[in-house]
Amino acid sequence: MHAPDVNAFLRHHIRTVPDWPAPGVQFRDITPLLQNPQVFHVLIDAFVHRYMSRDMRPDVVAGLDARGFILGAVIAYQLKVGFVPIRKKGKLPFTTVEETYELEYGSATVELHADAVKPGDKVLLVDDLIATGGTMMAGKNLLEKLGAQVMEGAAIVDLPELGGSKRLTDAGLPLFTLVDFAGH
Amino acid sequence: MHAPDVNAFLRHHIRTVPDWPAPGVQFRDITPLLQNPQVFHVLIDAFVHRYMSRDMRPDVVAGLDARGFILGAVIAYQLKVGFVPIRKKGKLPFTTVEETYELEYGSATVELHADAVKPGDKVLLVDDLIATGGTMMAGKNLLEKLGAQVMEGAAIVDLPELGGSKRLTDAGLPLFTLVDFAGH
Repeated sequence: MHAPDVNAFLRHHIRTVPDWPAPGVQFRDITPLLQNPQVFHVLIDAFVHRYMSRDMRPDVVAGLDARGFILGAVIAYQLKVGFVPIRKKGKLPFTTVEETYELEYGSATVELHADAVKPGDKVLLVDDLIATGGTMMAGKNLLEKLGAQVMEGAAIVDLPELGGSKRLTDAGLPLFTLVDFAGH
Repeated sequence: MHAPDVNAFLRHHIRTVPDWPAPGVQFRDITPLLQNPQVFHVLIDAFVHRYMSRDMRPDVVAGLDARGFILGAVIAYQLKVGFVPIRKKGKLPFTTVEETYELEYGSATVELHADAVKPGDKVLLVDDLIATGGTMMAGKNLLEKLGAQVMEGAAIVDLPELGGSKRLTDAGLPLFTLVDFAGH
């Protein structure tokens, strides 16, 4: 399949759940993409083909808790690079760096093991979906605290109207996403 | 490497964090296994080789939130079968079945999408570690509520002194683990 066909094919397998988790929200559920073996392979390979090329190959893949673990781990395995999890606070046992960011109501904190990356490592940062971009921005900041270079953020879905992808690219993080949905 | 060598090699890359998350607990941290590309491949391939054989091949891999996602997704991709996440309550957007289980203090609830598996599906259930076995038992019960057959539970680490692996095998769930640690 050519890239536009791949995107249309994947979009068709994303399930929209109305009014979840709150009235008026159209939740884009990526679990059907994982559940069908053929679709799962097309999905992963869309990322792997991009990052397999010599100048795009990362040293490390970092996945955001928890759906980013699913994609990030498979991409890392296929690229033969290491996988590191960025987790919600209180889940990682070893010495960590942490980053707090604002949510619509309140704030959240994410952590990364202090030895997860080395200074100068080129890191690919993976999540399932970009909404406001807060989690991905926090992940970028964490990795940079350890001296790594976040080469790109990758996700299946972009919700451009929520402004996250613009905010991230404005902050100097290139993005690669497969499907975008207007409205939310 | 032969299987005993593989187990010793993997054990060597598990980090023991003393007194986490509580005094007296020796936490077995599997993140170093994921971070080193060669070790990550040896780890995943130890599972894939077992489940690649014709009579052990599952129809679906189910991963337990959240470290089970990392292993389960890669194993599913390599076996060319679907991956389904079993999540803490409130994280899955579509119609779910749920199961509540006892913890040392209080209880926890896990959920599975109602269309995640079909009656008769042979499911491999994956987590990183078996301690008391409560989460894996709840996962087994969820999958069986949907008519699936849980063929085996797989994890990297077993902590046999916590009784989970005995409890699970007594309940009819065969287990496959790579490394066990006495003490906890």
